[in-house]
Amino acid sequence: MSSIGSDHSIEVDLAPAEVFSEDERDAIYRVIHARRDVRDEFLPESIPDVIIRRILDAAHHAPSVGLSQPWNFVLIRDPATKSAVYDAFVRCNDEAATMFTGDRGAHYRQLKLEGILKAPLNICVTCDRARGGPVVLGRTHQNEMDIYSTVCAIQNLWLAARAEGVGVGWVSIFKPEDLRRILNIPPEIVIVAYLCAGFVNQLFVRPELEARRWAKRIPLEQIVFEERWGLE
Amino acid sequence: MSSIGSDHSIEVDLAPAEVFSEDERDAIYRVIHARRDVRDEFLPESIPDVIIRRILDAAHHAPSVGLSQPWNFVLIRDPATKSAVYDAFVRCNDEAATMFTGDRGAHYRQLKLEGILKAPLNICVTCDRARGGPVVLGRTHQNEMDIYSTVCAIQNLWLAARAEGVGVGWVSIFKPEDLRRILNIPPEIVIVAYLCAGFVNQLFVRPELEARRWAKRIPLEQIVFEERWGLE
Repeated sequence: MSSIGSDHSIEVDLAPAEVFSEDERDAIYRVIHARRDVRDEFLPESIPDVIIRRILDAAHHAPSVGLSQPWNFVLIRDPATKSAVYDAFVRCNDEAATMFTGDRGAHYRQLKLEGILKAPLNICVTCDRARGGPVVLGRTHQNEMDIYSTVCAIQNLWLAARAEGVGVGWVSIFKPEDLRRILNIPPEIVIVAYLCAGFVNQLFVRPELEARRWAKRIPLEQIVFEERWGLE
Repeated sequence: MSSIGSDHSIEVDLAPAEVFSEDERDAIYRVIHARRDVRDEFLPESIPDVIIRRILDAAHHAPSVGLSQPWNFVLIRDPATKSAVYDAFVRCNDEAATMFTGDRGAHYRQLKLEGILKAPLNICVTCDRARGGPVVLGRTHQNEMDIYSTVCAIQNLWLAARAEGVGVGWVSIFKPEDLRRILNIPPEIVIVAYLCAGFVNQLFVRPELEARRWAKRIPLEQIVFEERWGLE
């Protein structure tokens, strides 16, 4: 992804911006609002390859710093691999539970926080920090922009999946070195996300952690500021 | 956002998952593929508040680790503020240009990489690492999950904006301390993104850096692996 030629002339590529109808806008907002972090509602049916490809292609069309496209996607279906990943989760989750005290600890232990074995497809999403060469446009002063690009790809994937009827859950209760060992990921590659994916026919109508009284939605007004930090 | 009560009973909140029609899916894929990182196509018209609110509400419905919702949005319209931000960009971009040598340096200098002054609205997106309390569900073993949640919110914002005919560009060529000073952002808050936003009626039909021959699209096949890292 370094220089691809010395011809800097621009190809004629500007065009009238595509317009979205009100119905189309509604669908886009609906998928944003209906997306859930799924832990338990996965159905066992395999996701057809054509759907997986559309979802990954959506991820691949995320913004990336300097068009570096630093992401990779490891698709995992092998029960033995999932089982090793699940064991790595359980070890960490037992540690995590001890960090919440009293009633909060009891509540934590009641929550199901992953669908590793139940979801037919797991996806590990990584960031190759060397992609794009030694100096990447847009990373010169914010080196972590490649990681952020990878997260944008994950959100595209999540929304595309939801539109296809596929639920996705992001499991973050891992030691990265465990996933690295199980999936043979080289040391220079950053593990950004471990996702569980599968068709769903039921979902929570609001975030599951809100339904289970773990946390509440913050009013939008409290987090939007004008001109500079802080409410007037 | 710490414990909100000792009643762990679940409210009845599971429902049949909303289904998206083929037309709705197409709209969702279309917005993902038609989204651009906009630098120069901004129109001067103000974005109505009702649209800004819909876009920010889409951001606010991103996934967040432990439902911590760690993001804030600072809306900037004051020309004096934009001018100070633009000056901070120029200082960094001059440094950045020197990091690309030979022909690549000349090419870099031809690129317009921001629309700070041209875009009617700038948005600084931040992450409050203390939100959600001292221990956050899902951050116990991956502390950076709150930053990733904030990036998911940015991608939601970007797609919602595109659906509204609003272009967005992410400017990353800053020293964060410059933005911190100009916008009065406290030291404990992480600055994740500085966005430029405005209506557009023309856009590049593919990524501008591809049109301007800075970089090429990687074939999807090269970045998707099966079961473990690496192509078979």
